[in-house]
Amino acid sequence: MSAHEKPRAPLPAEAMSLPARYYLDEDHYARELERLFLARWFYIGRADEVPNRGDYVLREAADESLIVTRGDDGRVRAFFNVCRHRGTRLCEQPSGTFTGAIRCPYHAWAYDLSGRLLGAPSMDQSPHFRAEDYPLVEARADVWDGHLFLNFAAAPPPLGDQLGALVAKFRPWKMEELRLAHRIVYDVAANWKLVIQNYSECLHCPGVHPALQRLSHFLSGENSAPTDAYLGGSMDLRDGVETLSRDGRLVGACVPGLAGDDLRRVHYYAVLPNLLLSLHPDYMMTHRLRPQGVGRTEIVCEWHFRPEAADAPEFDPQGAVEFWDLTNRQDWHVCEQMQLGLASRAYRPGPYSPREDLLFAFDRLVRGAE
Amino acid sequence: MSAHEKPRAPLPAEAMSLPARYYLDEDHYARELERLFLARWFYIGRADEVPNRGDYVLREAADESLIVTRGDDGRVRAFFNVCRHRGTRLCEQPSGTFTGAIRCPYHAWAYDLSGRLLGAPSMDQSPHFRAEDYPLVEARADVWDGHLFLNFAAAPPPLGDQLGALVAKFRPWKMEELRLAHRIVYDVAANWKLVIQNYSECLHCPGVHPALQRLSHFLSGENSAPTDAYLGGSMDLRDGVETLSRDGRLVGACVPGLAGDDLRRVHYYAVLPNLLLSLHPDYMMTHRLRPQGVGRTEIVCEWHFRPEAADAPEFDPQGAVEFWDLTNRQDWHVCEQMQLGLASRAYRPGPYSPREDLLFAFDRLVRGAE
Amino acid sequence: MSAHEKPRAPLPAEAMSLPARYYLDEDHYARELERLFLARWFYIGRADEVPNRGDYVLREAADESLIVTRGDDGRVRAFFNVCRHRGTRLCEQPSGTFTGAIRCPYHAWAYDLSGRLLGAPSMDQSPHFRAEDYPLVEARADVWDGHLFLNFAAAPPPLGDQLGALVAKFRPWKMEELRLAHRIVYDVAANWKLVIQNYSECLHCPGVHPALQRLSHFLSGENSAPTDAYLGGSMDLRDGVETLSRDGRLVGACVPGLAGDDLRRVHYYAVLPNLLLSLHPDYMMTHRLRPQGVGRTEIVCEWHFRPEAADAPEFDPQGAVEFWDLTNRQDWHVCEQMQLGLASRAYRPGPYSPREDLLFAFDRLVRGAE
Repeated sequence: MSAHEKPRAPLPAEAMSLPARYYLDEDHYARELERLFLARWFYIGRADEVPNRGDYVLREAADESLIVTRGDDGRVRAFFNVCRHRGTRLCEQPSGTFTGAIRCPYHAWAYDLSGRLLGAPSMDQSPHFRAEDYPLVEARADVWDGHLFLNFAAAPPPLGDQLGALVAKFRPWKMEELRLAHRIVYDVAANWKLVIQNYSECLHCPGVHPALQRLSHFLSGENSAPTDAYLGGSMDLRDGVETLSRDGRLVGACVPGLAGDDLRRVHYYAVLPNLLLSLHPDYMMTHRLRPQGVGRTEIVCEWHFRPEAADAPEFDPQGAVEFWDLTNRQDWHVCEQMQLGLASRAYRPGPYSPREDLLFAFDRLVRGAE
Repeated sequence: MSAHEKPRAPLPAEAMSLPARYYLDEDHYARELERLFLARWFYIGRADEVPNRGDYVLREAADESLIVTRGDDGRVRAFFNVCRHRGTRLCEQPSGTFTGAIRCPYHAWAYDLSGRLLGAPSMDQSPHFRAEDYPLVEARADVWDGHLFLNFAAAPPPLGDQLGALVAKFRPWKMEELRLAHRIVYDVAANWKLVIQNYSECLHCPGVHPALQRLSHFLSGENSAPTDAYLGGSMDLRDGVETLSRDGRLVGACVPGLAGDDLRRVHYYAVLPNLLLSLHPDYMMTHRLRPQGVGRTEIVCEWHFRPEAADAPEFDPQGAVEFWDLTNRQDWHVCEQMQLGLASRAYRPGPYSPREDLLFAFDRLVRGAE
Repeated sequence: MSAHEKPRAPLPAEAMSLPARYYLDEDHYARELERLFLARWFYIGRADEVPNRGDYVLREAADESLIVTRGDDGRVRAFFNVCRHRGTRLCEQPSGTFTGAIRCPYHAWAYDLSGRLLGAPSMDQSPHFRAEDYPLVEARADVWDGHLFLNFAAAPPPLGDQLGALVAKFRPWKMEELRLAHRIVYDVAANWKLVIQNYSECLHCPGVHPALQRLSHFLSGENSAPTDAYLGGSMDLRDGVETLSRDGRLVGACVPGLAGDDLRRVHYYAVLPNLLLSLHPDYMMTHRLRPQGVGRTEIVCEWHFRPEAADAPEFDPQGAVEFWDLTNRQDWHVCEQMQLGLASRAYRPGPYSPREDLLFAFDRLVRGAE
């Protein structure tokens, strides 16, 4: 056993990869999206993307367009981008600021920032019409330490209930204070679950990620007990390595107050269904997964740093960006090769090794939502 | 009430826009195309596109290719573009003249201009074969004042029966004499019914078409009683405006004999299922709608003028073309935004205002054909 | 009757082309592919494409990727390109040589050239795991005179049983010795059966292929009795014509030992389901049909010559290549026009002439597999 190795318990004999339909069947995909994705709190971006009253961004989720905006009361709300008159999209520009009202471009129905219908031309001549019957349709929104989540369920429990232990665990990272430094959007020809499975084991790291393997040994991973809300753990940085970057040196200032092992490790958590949260001593990387179909996923990867680092004139995040961009592309490639192979009549579920224990836990959740 | 306003009666409480399936469901679309479109007389172009014996144009309707040609007897006929031998397309060039026969490029089966099979190589050695069993398959064709219509039903009533009062109403415009001056083909990502609905109300005009609103007030519209065959009415030109054009001045010669209100108005009629007929004092604009799928429509827009105008050396239709090209694009854009919005889970039918009365009538027809 | 004409017996009255669903229906296509194509020996290329131990090529058939490789025992085998661990594609490069093992790029599972699993990282910690349970999944492979065939059935009879009389008939051409001189890949928007039907009659030749008609009269064809395995016959070269080429002169050396009529004819055999084998006095042309969907076929056309011709410094196959490339494109075009016509509501089966007798035989086979 390597000096780096943290052992794992054997898995039961039934620990086999999922049948192919989970990755290929369009109907299965549609049901899964409703039950496992949209009926949970899913990650949609950062709350500071709409810093002021009236600011908005458009976000897409499961073929839906949502207007995410901050109201007069300072609260962030999300509205389906659909006029209550005849259904026209209200908003086209990906971001901006509403001055006054949210106004439909077709017949000028107007709504306030809480979704209330303010005016509807010529409807005053309709005796049956009552404006209060036609507010914008809202999706639930909630925030965790700067991360913005939505939920399409009618009356979901609070986001904090879903996240459980993570809320306290990652408070020392002061995630709300971090600032976006870089974003790369990837288009990956693979089912979204393959991306989560890929993120949840490092058995593939020696062959797929030689640069990562030089900075962090693939057997050094140690997992938390998996829950229905998240899967994750940490991996050690090798001696002398300060963070994951091109040269292993710090890229930004470390999070103030972080101490001990957290300065010699990276924490990797798949916050289900679609946030991959990677906490380094000096930066946070987020992957937001956006399923685009049973075999396609858009992945928005962002690098977030401390404000005191990001504000420094000489600040340059490229050491972290380039390291992970390379690693990301290596991962997407094997995910795509797996998506292709799963479509074969020769595919049948194969056995997980003990180092793929989180995948076995994830698959149980996936099966349970079927 | 504005001085321009022509009032409308309130609509009943059930006057709501159609459920989303009418615009999104592929199967619904296919049925609707058969029942509401192909089993009626639909507009296919102008009879003078095949002026002489043997001239032909290819026309597409509902994934069908049709050969529209003028026979030895001067009649226009339409044949499905399919050889009776093994089914090969007979004709590829979009227009031309048949000299002698319509000949299949594969095995040289030959047909005359009335569709009769003239020759079939090597079939003389087949004792069972009788040429009269294999004429081209015909679609019904009929002409209204220069407008050519087809009908896929086996034995439809004459075109005039479908058109009803329109035949007499528009005789003063002498439409048969008009000449094509310009054509623009648009590809619109919206269901064909959204285009008809958009054409059938001007409640959207102040916001969507400021240039049109300057020449013709959106509340000046007055509709005929809607029928199963057409929806339409007229709108007044503002004082001092002669026609709809870039500068409001006439572009061509007025139709001789037109008088009174018809020189101060534009008539807009949706001749169902697919001709939008817009009669100005000095020109006729036609939109031919060609559904390409549940969410896509090709629109052929043409501007037709009096021969004495079109023949004048200094004639330039651009004043009318540019005005309407701008207006068209504004309309297609909101139709596309509505098509997008209808696909949302948040869409539900919304209330029509009194100024959308023709849409309510159209929707009843659409529902009735379901 | 022309001096060239070889007469044919009349066909029965039911000899009509197939209903449209055989060419248009996606579900029909999928079933047909299984029953008529993959459950037979189908042509996949030439055995000399993997001359040495460890050499491989990737081949695609019916959305499957196959690794075709030569083992330590000299035998050619085909494996589905799917790792037994989690299903990843093993191999991406279209050809190459395995040194040592076939290794999965994701988690490094390794297989020998007979498909046996050699190693699986971390699986030694799984008490249930037995490597012998996870060999690569194999597809049957067999060779006829240099032609390589696969079969997806579990235990098919030998290739020779399927080919029957062809094995002896074409032995004089020493096909195994021939060398590839040129390859052109065509993408044709037509069902694969239309290509076979097109190849199986020359009634279309005078109109479609004037250059071919100048070298070989369309009525000179004489067919073998059709079987379930092949359809074909020969056509005479006109007096003074040596082979089918730009100028009718030989392009390569004639096959040694060929004599008599075989030097004045071309043999055309559709070896079902997907090899079109055209034997000229001095070269072999092969068409490999690769169905890509109900209405699309990729066609790999290759020209193969004697080694003594191919090795000569002045050798140039272009006289044969250009002649057939022109002829091929003429054929694909009428196939595509027929595919378009079949989609019309006006299509109904039409009568075959006596010169389309092989099509009637082929269609019976197609109907029988439904």
